[in-house]
Amino acid sequence: MSDFQVYDTTLRDGAQQEGISLSVQDKLVIAGHLDDLGVGFIEGGWPGAIPKDTEFFRRAATDLRLKHAQLAAFGATRKAGVRVEEDAQVQALVDSLAPVVTLVAKSDIRHVERALRTTGAENLAMVADTVRHLREHGRRVFLDAEHFFDGYRADPAYAVEVLRTAAEAGAEVVALCDTNGGMLPAELADVVHAVVSASGARVGIHCHNDTGCAVANTLAAVDAGATHVQGTLNGYGERTGNADLVTVVANLEIKRGQQVLPTGRIAEATRIAHAVDEITNVTPYHRRPYTGASSFAHKAGLHASAIKVDPELYNHTDPLRVGNDMRMLVSDMAGRASIELKGRELGFDLAGDRELLGRITDRVKALEAEGYTFEAADASFVLLLHEEVYGFRPSYCSVESWRVITEARTDAGEAVSEATVKLHAGGRRHVATAEGNGPVSALDHALRSALLPVYPELDGIRLSDFKVRIIDASIGTDAVTRVLIETRGPNSVWETVGVGPNIVEASWKALLDGFTYGLLTQDVPSR
Amino acid sequence: MSDFQVYDTTLRDGAQQEGISLSVQDKLVIAGHLDDLGVGFIEGGWPGAIPKDTEFFRRAATDLRLKHAQLAAFGATRKAGVRVEEDAQVQALVDSLAPVVTLVAKSDIRHVERALRTTGAENLAMVADTVRHLREHGRRVFLDAEHFFDGYRADPAYAVEVLRTAAEAGAEVVALCDTNGGMLPAELADVVHAVVSASGARVGIHCHNDTGCAVANTLAAVDAGATHVQGTLNGYGERTGNADLVTVVANLEIKRGQQVLPTGRIAEATRIAHAVDEITNVTPYHRRPYTGASSFAHKAGLHASAIKVDPELYNHTDPLRVGNDMRMLVSDMAGRASIELKGRELGFDLAGDRELLGRITDRVKALEAEGYTFEAADASFVLLLHEEVYGFRPSYCSVESWRVITEARTDAGEAVSEATVKLHAGGRRHVATAEGNGPVSALDHALRSALLPVYPELDGIRLSDFKVRIIDASIGTDAVTRVLIETRGPNSVWETVGVGPNIVEASWKALLDGFTYGLLTQDVPSR
Repeated sequence: MSDFQVYDTTLRDGAQQEGISLSVQDKLVIAGHLDDLGVGFIEGGWPGAIPKDTEFFRRAATDLRLKHAQLAAFGATRKAGVRVEEDAQVQALVDSLAPVVTLVAKSDIRHVERALRTTGAENLAMVADTVRHLREHGRRVFLDAEHFFDGYRADPAYAVEVLRTAAEAGAEVVALCDTNGGMLPAELADVVHAVVSASGARVGIHCHNDTGCAVANTLAAVDAGATHVQGTLNGYGERTGNADLVTVVANLEIKRGQQVLPTGRIAEATRIAHAVDEITNVTPYHRRPYTGASSFAHKAGLHASAIKVDPELYNHTDPLRVGNDMRMLVSDMAGRASIELKGRELGFDLAGDRELLGRITDRVKALEAEGYTFEAADASFVLLLHEEVYGFRPSYCSVESWRVITEARTDAGEAVSEATVKLHAGGRRHVATAEGNGPVSALDHALRSALLPVYPELDGIRLSDFKVRIIDASIGTDAVTRVLIETRGPNSVWETVGVGPNIVEASWKALLDGFTYGLLTQDVPSR
Repeated sequence: MSDFQVYDTTLRDGAQQEGISLSVQDKLVIAGHLDDLGVGFIEGGWPGAIPKDTEFFRRAATDLRLKHAQLAAFGATRKAGVRVEEDAQVQALVDSLAPVVTLVAKSDIRHVERALRTTGAENLAMVADTVRHLREHGRRVFLDAEHFFDGYRADPAYAVEVLRTAAEAGAEVVALCDTNGGMLPAELADVVHAVVSASGARVGIHCHNDTGCAVANTLAAVDAGATHVQGTLNGYGERTGNADLVTVVANLEIKRGQQVLPTGRIAEATRIAHAVDEITNVTPYHRRPYTGASSFAHKAGLHASAIKVDPELYNHTDPLRVGNDMRMLVSDMAGRASIELKGRELGFDLAGDRELLGRITDRVKALEAEGYTFEAADASFVLLLHEEVYGFRPSYCSVESWRVITEARTDAGEAVSEATVKLHAGGRRHVATAEGNGPVSALDHALRSALLPVYPELDGIRLSDFKVRIIDASIGTDAVTRVLIETRGPNSVWETVGVGPNIVEASWKALLDGFTYGLLTQDVPSR
């Protein structure tokens, strides 16, 4: 394992996917998940070129405690005709404080001449100067050789010269990028094989899925001598996406017996893949290898009893190895084993009571069929476990009604929302009205205002994020809305979920769960 | 081309996908599309075992006029211990009148013993008898050797013996099935290579995508001597799906120069892939190789000007070869070049007016800083272009005010939303109130009800999807909500965007844009 590098670029190349737009906070949370998965390197973005990425590295330096991974800053070689010490973009890479810098360099002479509009010799000097400069500042330097395979086809000697120049200047890795994604495995393997001995550095591979072969191309490169693989969670990326890093790693570890992550980490893959889909707000692809919701789902019928007796005859691997679960269709995601594991993680020992575990599993299945997901809503799941284990759901008030009015007049600027909440708490009835810049914030303010006199502990708790997904209509005639709410307390952050046809009602459920969990974890006695 | 077989199993193995359920009529329409694509064989289903499939073959015999393809009926070998002439399932295959019968047979001795519960010798007799019987009835016979690769690992001699038995009895093709989908290309190629000379028949390949390698495995088999490939449209299939036949064919034809479909048919692939997604009602996967909506989409930024000059440097193939098209995404690195390209795509020639182009670019940048994105909202972008190019934004009404009330009482079931819209259109004031299962659907209904008397063209237009994203606070002190709305007209679908701190207001903007664009494209005169 020590001599193999798993390099994730979800936060940089993955974020190029159509429709993905990550905040700095999103990136920090995803980096935590990637570290949890055990990847060796996390490429965080391009400081200097993208202000949000500069901010990411600034906050990462203080906020992120990484267990396994090193952060990598992505950037370009110095500009043509500029001294490296005077190149502001290169200086931003140094300033990012990332221990690794991954430099993208042109290795296709046509791109050098037509896109960069400089000469082959100057491009080589740009590579050498920038690598050397970053090495002098104590950074590990990796080189991403952009359009490498197209470049190799056009002018193999020049393409290899770029790698050799980087290696001689001190680059530790030269990653061969199939930037346009047009390669097939056999052809790619031939090139990697030819390059491995000539480059003078560790060879890495960076593939896109335009021929449907990103994973196979990555494996073919490993077979040909590459010992550094780049990819993204869930195969996110521009066009058809990048190589799915989990699929690559699972193939190497499970099919080839080559361990490339710390022991046991690949068993977290399914949980992490789904948690990150929630953050990026990308609809999870059900047919995704290893981690997809359908990946170990069998349409019953013919083989049902045979599958039950001999599951290993019908699954290409044990789904638990990647944290997934076998499903017989007309069923759903949740299995007892994963609920038992999840319960243990949250402090509930369910192993001893098979009847209880069965009841919780059935309940989760029924809720998932309605559109709930607990992947990214541990706090709601704790409330459910609490209800099943102790016989009552923690509750701090009895709601009579709520109402939100949102209105706008063209002659009066922005729309305003006003909420009224009526509830019973602490032995009496409370009616509160509050405004907000949207229906959810108005409800949040009104609920807080009604409860605060009874529960001063709510003072330190606030709504910190809000995500909405429309789940389409396999569930009924109408679309169902799923709302995830993040609430922040003095020392922690928790997520809750609400589901329903009405977005405001779904938000209300998640909001109320968020308050309830916040009070519960402060040991406020509930009913 | 004549010596290579492209065999489609969308209607049989593809239909095993979770959520796909095809009527006989659906299957007939899809078969027409497959024939139009030019595949050699269309596996229609399992007559005798599935009543709908029996009906499909009955109707196909009269209703389908196939130009290229032959129909194949899928079925099993005779039952153990039963004479082939007396096996009702085998008789149904004969009765289907399909010119080709594809027999599935066990080739893994463990499946023979544990799932079929018979002996290796009887299984061989079942294969030989059934192939011979169908040949005597004048059918071409193909054999699907189920679980072949797992079987070969367990007992290579037996697995090959099954193939040889089929070939000797008259089977024309023996297709090696990676039924559980666990193979990787290098290992699979070794097995195919060993089998090609030993089998005595044409070798085919049938792959699933459980390791993310279905396409690469199929190509590896072709490299090792297979001359018959099986797959499905859009990679439909159980679990992670089957090999995507379009991707396999495009790789062979475009990357390898090996023509396997009639001339020019692969250029219909994108149209056909999307048409079939409509019939199966599977959400099109944007990142699908070759035919996906994002497959040739570029986030402009850095390279936009270079892409404009040299598109072939940035696309792995000309998208028109598979009937797809390059798209520029208007992203937050938007420069003049990408806006010019995007404008051209939408029918606005901006190249001649540098001042106009500069003004639009500045406007887009300012809107993106507010949280807008036009990446997935071409219709809103068209309205913006219209405004800048012609000097006025198309508009069909003048809104005075709107209001939505959402309320819930604990004792009264689900929340209800009610909207009131006041506007001027067609020379008079309209006030309309309507309910909905959420604030956006209530506004949609009220707006429609207010405008319909003036614009009957709205009758064919409906809100078809709704996505929400909370963009956090790098933009200002408060979170901003971005809403994307998809609207569907009689012949097309379009997307609009609305942004604002209030989710309901952002939705209102996107909704109004959606109606406006729908009327504009029906040439309804606007103000």
